[in-house]
Amino acid sequence: MSKKKRETPSNGRYAYEGLERVIHEKARLGIVTSLAAHPDGLLFSQLKEMCSLTDGNLNRHLQVLTEAEFIEIWKHQGEGRPQTLCRLTTLGRKKLTEYVAELEKVVRDALSASEPLPKRKPGDEWSLA
Amino acid sequence: MSKKKRETPSNGRYAYEGLERVIHEKARLGIVTSLAAHPDGLLFSQLKEMCSLTDGNLNRHLQVLTEAEFIEIWKHQGEGRPQTLCRLTTLGRKKLTEYVAELEKVVRDALSASEPLPKRKPGDEWSLA
Repeated sequence: MSKKKRETPSNGRYAYEGLERVIHEKARLGIVTSLAAHPDGLLFSQLKEMCSLTDGNLNRHLQVLTEAEFIEIWKHQGEGRPQTLCRLTTLGRKKLTEYVAELEKVVRDALSASEPLPKRKPGDEWSLA
Repeated sequence: MSKKKRETPSNGRYAYEGLERVIHEKARLGIVTSLAAHPDGLLFSQLKEMCSLTDGNLNRHLQVLTEAEFIEIWKHQGEGRPQTLCRLTTLGRKKLTEYVAELEKVVRDALSASEPLPKRKPGDEWSLA
């Protein structure tokens, strides 16, 4: 194998630049997807349960998403405790759509490569580090 | 809306627990997917180009993947500089397969929710935070 000329790899073929970091973080991906599924918005308490997050974590991620203008936060002071409603913005929905297109690329790449590993070692001249 | 009883959210519906953190990190996702596509392995220099990573970043991520036993590193000292070959392990391939199944769930969730946002505000009693 060491003598066989390898193909030049296409630069950045697996860099997945379209995986917007603000959305890619696992908890935020859950938040954004659940908000996309609920166009009227979700209350803080609902998001917390749907995404299995603590108050602190949810707050932190909502702040990142608000700063990126992917979501908007609405406050309501009625009877009892004030309520917080979160909604995806038009920008947030656009970014999620772009993100998902890149995700589909990852899924295609991974699935197209699902043949089993060959059993052989790379070669006698190689040693496992 | 404040008077309408909302449905109880299903707990953790959007928690995406199957998104294994070792693989989910954007750079490592690229590394693992490119290795899945090249069952014979990839040289360090090839991975670097394919994933658009610096030496330092690639080294750091390879270490995390090696510790998780998702990849194995082979060393070869021939003529010239020593070479490093990276290969996906059977465990790594299994984990990627499970990860991609969860990714497909995210894609389905996001796509099933792609109706446009309603124009109206949540209601007069709500104020934007």
